[in-house]
Amino acid sequence: MKKRVFMFGIHNHQPVGNFDHIFKETFNNGYLPFINILERYPEIRISLHYSGPLMEWIEKEDVGYFDKIRRMVERGQVEILSGGFYEPLLSILPEEDSIGQIRMMTGFIRERFNYDPKGIWLAERVWTPDLSRIINLSGMKYTVLDDTHFFYAGLNHKDMFGYYITEKEGYPIAIFPIDKFLRYSIPFKHPQETIEYIKKSVADYNFDGITYADDGEKFGIWPGTYKWVYEEGWLEDFFRTIKENLYWIEMLTFSEYLEKYPPSGRIYLPMASYEEMMEWALPAHVGVRYEEALKELENKGMRERLKPFIRGGLWDNFLSKYPESNQMHKKMLYVSKKARNLPNLFPRVTNNEDRTEYYKPDPLLVELYKGQCNCAYWHGLFGGIYLNHLRHAVYKHLIKAENLIDKRYCKDKDWIMMEKIDIDADNHNEILISGGEINAYIDPDYGGSFFEIDYRPKCFNLSNTLTRREEPYHRKIKLPNGDTHTNETISQPPSIHDIIKKKEKGMEDMLSYDWYLRRSFLDHFLGEGTTLQDFMICSYPEKGDFIRNRYEIVEDETIKGDGREIRVILRRLGQIHENGVYREIEVSKGFSFPQKGAIINSIYRIKNRSPEELQLWFGVEFNLTLLSGDDSQRYYFIPGIELKEERLNKSGEAIELKEFGMKDEYNKFQISLSFEEPTAIWYFPVETLSQSESGFQRTYQGSVILSHWKIGLKREGMKEISIKLEIKEI
Amino acid sequence: MKKRVFMFGIHNHQPVGNFDHIFKETFNNGYLPFINILERYPEIRISLHYSGPLMEWIEKEDVGYFDKIRRMVERGQVEILSGGFYEPLLSILPEEDSIGQIRMMTGFIRERFNYDPKGIWLAERVWTPDLSRIINLSGMKYTVLDDTHFFYAGLNHKDMFGYYITEKEGYPIAIFPIDKFLRYSIPFKHPQETIEYIKKSVADYNFDGITYADDGEKFGIWPGTYKWVYEEGWLEDFFRTIKENLYWIEMLTFSEYLEKYPPSGRIYLPMASYEEMMEWALPAHVGVRYEEALKELENKGMRERLKPFIRGGLWDNFLSKYPESNQMHKKMLYVSKKARNLPNLFPRVTNNEDRTEYYKPDPLLVELYKGQCNCAYWHGLFGGIYLNHLRHAVYKHLIKAENLIDKRYCKDKDWIMMEKIDIDADNHNEILISGGEINAYIDPDYGGSFFEIDYRPKCFNLSNTLTRREEPYHRKIKLPNGDTHTNETISQPPSIHDIIKKKEKGMEDMLSYDWYLRRSFLDHFLGEGTTLQDFMICSYPEKGDFIRNRYEIVEDETIKGDGREIRVILRRLGQIHENGVYREIEVSKGFSFPQKGAIINSIYRIKNRSPEELQLWFGVEFNLTLLSGDDSQRYYFIPGIELKEERLNKSGEAIELKEFGMKDEYNKFQISLSFEEPTAIWYFPVETLSQSESGFQRTYQGSVILSHWKIGLKREGMKEISIKLEIKEI
Repeated sequence: MKKRVFMFGIHNHQPVGNFDHIFKETFNNGYLPFINILERYPEIRISLHYSGPLMEWIEKEDVGYFDKIRRMVERGQVEILSGGFYEPLLSILPEEDSIGQIRMMTGFIRERFNYDPKGIWLAERVWTPDLSRIINLSGMKYTVLDDTHFFYAGLNHKDMFGYYITEKEGYPIAIFPIDKFLRYSIPFKHPQETIEYIKKSVADYNFDGITYADDGEKFGIWPGTYKWVYEEGWLEDFFRTIKENLYWIEMLTFSEYLEKYPPSGRIYLPMASYEEMMEWALPAHVGVRYEEALKELENKGMRERLKPFIRGGLWDNFLSKYPESNQMHKKMLYVSKKARNLPNLFPRVTNNEDRTEYYKPDPLLVELYKGQCNCAYWHGLFGGIYLNHLRHAVYKHLIKAENLIDKRYCKDKDWIMMEKIDIDADNHNEILISGGEINAYIDPDYGGSFFEIDYRPKCFNLSNTLTRREEPYHRKIKLPNGDTHTNETISQPPSIHDIIKKKEKGMEDMLSYDWYLRRSFLDHFLGEGTTLQDFMICSYPEKGDFIRNRYEIVEDETIKGDGREIRVILRRLGQIHENGVYREIEVSKGFSFPQKGAIINSIYRIKNRSPEELQLWFGVEFNLTLLSGDDSQRYYFIPGIELKEERLNKSGEAIELKEFGMKDEYNKFQISLSFEEPTAIWYFPVETLSQSESGFQRTYQGSVILSHWKIGLKREGMKEISIKLEIKEI
Repeated sequence: MKKRVFMFGIHNHQPVGNFDHIFKETFNNGYLPFINILERYPEIRISLHYSGPLMEWIEKEDVGYFDKIRRMVERGQVEILSGGFYEPLLSILPEEDSIGQIRMMTGFIRERFNYDPKGIWLAERVWTPDLSRIINLSGMKYTVLDDTHFFYAGLNHKDMFGYYITEKEGYPIAIFPIDKFLRYSIPFKHPQETIEYIKKSVADYNFDGITYADDGEKFGIWPGTYKWVYEEGWLEDFFRTIKENLYWIEMLTFSEYLEKYPPSGRIYLPMASYEEMMEWALPAHVGVRYEEALKELENKGMRERLKPFIRGGLWDNFLSKYPESNQMHKKMLYVSKKARNLPNLFPRVTNNEDRTEYYKPDPLLVELYKGQCNCAYWHGLFGGIYLNHLRHAVYKHLIKAENLIDKRYCKDKDWIMMEKIDIDADNHNEILISGGEINAYIDPDYGGSFFEIDYRPKCFNLSNTLTRREEPYHRKIKLPNGDTHTNETISQPPSIHDIIKKKEKGMEDMLSYDWYLRRSFLDHFLGEGTTLQDFMICSYPEKGDFIRNRYEIVEDETIKGDGREIRVILRRLGQIHENGVYREIEVSKGFSFPQKGAIINSIYRIKNRSPEELQLWFGVEFNLTLLSGDDSQRYYFIPGIELKEERLNKSGEAIELKEFGMKDEYNKFQISLSFEEPTAIWYFPVETLSQSESGFQRTYQGSVILSHWKIGLKREGMKEISIKLEIKEI
């Protein structure tokens, strides 16, 4: 009897910047028990992938773990997959970084496991046809992708076996289609069901090889699975059941299969990922329509037939859906380009010679690569971009890389410079101020706002906030608790996709959405009667048009001759709208950046350009984050008074202040705003509500500080306001 | 009243290698009268694109034409679009060639029209996200794409106005969505309907700008349109109607709009083209299912709602659907790489400095670029890959480029060399023999067959044949004549998509499909009783397994010490199947290639490896083309006898021949097969049936020559057969 090959692949990953306690928990509940059981079943051949952040953590915490795997590699039980070291989406990296990250992991695996990997795990299975060339040039021969991708290329279920050859520009690789049934049955159904399915597939399609590959977190880490997989013995059962069937099933690693069997054909896959990801990537309201469309097709019995032709969005849409993701991504590209421009960067990846040689990238590249970890750049079932500590980790490593790059140019601490480039790729230039202690990026086209303020000594982006947006799942908050979870009578753990839990009560109250990006130096004209509460929930009359519109650049120059200070002046002739009448108002704001310290000096001039006298309520909004809303080490302060009780998730108002700020005792720095003439202050947290694997999650994204003044302006009258923002160590 | 912008773009193209009479016809019926009328309406602002092959032809034939356009450019009426010079699909070129082709056209336009183009026409609107980077690096700012692409990104009809910003790796460009209604109403509906549509769209969506852009061939060249557009005055009507509405419509070129208006948003488009193209790219049977699915959705009233989520295949699938396209594409990549490896190629495109400077590429690059013209690489509504003269043009220019490259290396005429590389990107190496007069490419994995035989002095690929395949529209041949054309009572010309005409009677007879690729040195074992007719329609018993399976390479070397000859020996131990019994047969074939001339010497050895005596009917198949099946200058010959009446679309049989060949008096060369011992010969044409703009088309793709012998082989018996293939000038 001809044996049929069953390939079994596991991908384990924790993101850069994840909390240590989560690493620990996932290791003990998932990665460790899995390997301990696997060790006792030498017949079970398996292909394993660990992302770099996880490998680095394990390496540090439990040396014995990898020794165990190394022995399994040596006895031919396990093959290790390479991949981008810090689990980046290869499709959104510069080619050189993709190849560098894969070579870094290949080198690591060779050193640690004495094994030359032959294929890669593709983070989030985000495929773009170019990857064929990049993977090939990295010295790798294959990857694995969901069968979804293959359906989109016009194949049928009967074709979802073995592997296919694809290529870009003549550089081929092999791709194994992952069987969807197996992706849902392992470990969620009884082992025998998986065996029966494989048996039936042999009968129906007479295949040579079938592939399973999925996240290792399904084995003990996803809710409910620890009990099921280990305590109730699913994994042992599964391995035993396979062992009993080895008279007709053959277990091979991917590379063994590749050696032994010819390809099933030539194929060109569209840009795609797994089905759910393509739904998440759609704009919120389109996501809802997509879900409805799928349901309708399901109900009419058309879904299966139309499967090859139905699909959602591209991963890249996240860059449009979340401008904060785009900002982070473009900062990453900016740093990457800066790195590649260095004359003596080691090693440079420019060709495919010696591509499997041991490769240890320059420390500044390692920081850049860490900043490319995918998780913070998007949002689906897990928190992703909503998790501020993950975004912070990205910025931290990117700023660290930048610091290292600037050091190569022998820059000392006290320097400041200006660039005008289109960093965010919107076809318009932004103004980038970079210095020894500060980066400050200004977007003239979006209200002349600051979208990045970095305190470089601490590698901290204080503007790393997030705007509150509608998400399709917010609709579910209105359902009675637990309603959507219908699987409870079944003994198997529910698939994670079915769980909707609420973590806190009263979350409906939090569902206010912002109409603008939460940046700094945003210029408001408030309508009369607006309260702090109104402003918090974006339910107030904004009289001006200065928030999202274009400011002209009046002046930008390096002054004081010796380049010790930079000055930028922006101006907008805008309108105030009141009772159906439009009045012209000019706002100009001049910024200066001294070369010493992390300081932004600003001078506002508000001019009445209308023929009438005007009563204005002018406010300048800052959005700054110290990451934690509820931590005794991070709080507001007024000079001389440390409001230790006033943690960053509190809201409040104050009057007649000449200084107001936020202190971070944990990271040992503070940020303060000082005003030449006293101001009223509103402050409150921006918190988001997002889904995660275990329900809804409330996250502190940053603090709004609004300094505001009531101003009477005669015709052609002018009001000047000075604000100084300073960040310093404490 | 605020004016609304109407942008009007026209793309004119004829492929490299098209017949001169077609250039003439299309020029006189379309390109010329259009411009003559446009000249009289200076109020009609327009963006024009001409592909390079067309510009070169016009330049040569009618100098006054471009002078006219230059004057319109100078008076600001016309802007000229750049693009890949020879209308390549940028998505399938090496980046350097894409940038080179765009810069070549930009240089040409600057010289000819004294105008710096700002955007490009994208051939066949085949979009892939990388193009953003490539177009930007070519110094261009925008392109136009079908609204289809935008729907796929989750936008709605209300969003299909103005332009969007997209980017890859931080390199942005603008993209204008082409309105689908306009694409169908111009010039097919009365002008007033277009005006009403725009008016209604203003009311519904309050847009700033709306885009029309489409093929210029719709104006006089597509069937029925000359009468409608010019004789019946549609175009004059249209321009006049717009003129009358200029009190609320403003006509701007794309680049003018770009200057004046902000973008409608940021967007990431999937790989896509217009809807029809994505259907054609699907495998034939999937194409049928796709059509049915669309119909079903239409009938159930779901199509419009599901539009964003429904799509067909990628252009790249053509490379899988038509292996001949892949072969041509990979030959092109091979030549391109060879060119880029040249040390002193001028100019080299490696960065984006001086990107708009006048750029005149090296003559060998011009030949390469000509070989990249897209039309022959795929098939949809027009003949495309089915048109042998277009495929021939591609090969001709690629071989010409190769000849020029080899000349740079100072190679003389008498040389021969061998490479083993994976030219077709199937993950296995092929054997490439290249010499002063011949290229011969062998695929050990596909029956040890020859898939390219070039006669280099004439830049002629004699293996440029095509396999007969099922196409979805073949089903329609069974319909009664004219049945599908229901538009005849309407005065407007039917849209080209609705026309199904038959060009010849009895076409059903031609619908036989091949089960293997039509290559040379294919080894058959025929079943008893097979007739020429059976063999022609692929309805005969093939006893062996030598056609599509793997031959091992036994030997490959350069012999005779001084490199004057190359020898390759292939061997397969295969099976003969008869009456349920399998017998082992070994076929080995040794080839030698002398450095002088265009000669392939072959020696076959067929060995009986079974324990019984065997009666075999062995045949070696050649597929060679001289492009024209019905031409008095191309015919078969037997030494001493010129079978002038035996044109290449004839079939026949002969016995006891020692030589048989095909003569091309037009191109002045012949190809002959000589046999050491007399052979029987079958010969017949391979003809395909494909759709074109004016109905079905029968095309001669090449001639099959099968030399065959009946052989009795004792146990361990062996038969040796020698065949020499020689090409020479006459």
